[in-house]
Amino acid sequence: MSSMETEKGAVPTPQAPPVAPTDNKYRVVDVILRVLLLAASIASVVLMVTSKQTEIIVSPFGSRPNAAKFQNSPAFIYLVAALSVAGLYSIITALVSLSYMRKPIVPPKLFWILLIHDVLLLGIVAAATGTAGGVGYIGLKGNTHVRWGKIRNVYDKFCRHVGASIIVSLFAAAVLVLLVFVNANSLYRRIPKY
Amino acid sequence: MSSMETEKGAVPTPQAPPVAPTDNKYRVVDVILRVLLLAASIASVVLMVTSKQTEIIVSPFGSRPNAAKFQNSPAFIYLVAALSVAGLYSIITALVSLSYMRKPIVPPKLFWILLIHDVLLLGIVAAATGTAGGVGYIGLKGNTHVRWGKIRNVYDKFCRHVGASIIVSLFAAAVLVLLVFVNANSLYRRIPKY
Repeated sequence: MSSMETEKGAVPTPQAPPVAPTDNKYRVVDVILRVLLLAASIASVVLMVTSKQTEIIVSPFGSRPNAAKFQNSPAFIYLVAALSVAGLYSIITALVSLSYMRKPIVPPKLFWILLIHDVLLLGIVAAATGTAGGVGYIGLKGNTHVRWGKIRNVYDKFCRHVGASIIVSLFAAAVLVLLVFVNANSLYRRIPKY
Repeated sequence: MSSMETEKGAVPTPQAPPVAPTDNKYRVVDVILRVLLLAASIASVVLMVTSKQTEIIVSPFGSRPNAAKFQNSPAFIYLVAALSVAGLYSIITALVSLSYMRKPIVPPKLFWILLIHDVLLLGIVAAATGTAGGVGYIGLKGNTHVRWGKIRNVYDKFCRHVGASIIVSLFAAAVLVLLVFVNANSLYRRIPKY
């Protein structure tokens, strides 16, 4: 049982053996979820960035080409920024999580730090998904009360891309919730049962 | 040292004494934050519900009274729904947290359950804040690219109420993040240091 050898010294502790062997399973789940988060972030950003669509708009003032692009809406810029941060964050934390996978005993502080930062990122990603979703919904359905016309009938490709990007971003938020669950569980399992 | 008497039996455990006395401090913070969450939820819902404003709209088709109300936007309905759930949730969990405050040792499962549900609610509240914020921002600034006119110049009271409601809702999301921190900390403190 080499897992009893902690860094602080070789004193065998009664709590270490039952938790150490199952820790690795949770670390594997943690890394897989972080890779999923990275994939979702990249997919969402790429979908949003490639959404540009140019159409000829016929109006009483003459017809002219008009491009729908995500930069026209602060909400979509926020989504791209939030998911870029999420992607970078997932790379860094996946590497940190991987580096601890081979160690016999993972320090509980790691779970705590990961959990705290996952929660903060969850707030950012969920808010960004909501913001883009709210604006995207108006683009899809319009709002007759304030005479905001829908744009789906003109910019179909743009709307498909934006919609897909928002759904993938929602998935990224769900992955972050699962990551918080995994690390909360890792913390909880380390507490000795009285 | 009566705090050593756990429910499972009177066997003295070496881990219990250092953590039990400081648990109450965190329980007090937990209850205070839940009361803050309740206050913020009520304030946000009340601000949104009382936002109705009727103005005479002059258009080429004649002038008519037109009411701006939160029910006109699915985003604002979602915010009211999410914060009503948050308000109810905060009452229930504050009572649960209070009921454990007098006990000498709080079972760690409580922190775990509170943390999991706080995270889920954080996702809902953050997304609702983002959704309403995204739509509210268009109402405030408009978007010339898709010819969505701003409504702030006409419905000033409505916009003030909605804006305040969104800011209070953002505060509620921040309180939920702090609640997750408190319970993650309570879990972390229960882990014996090797």
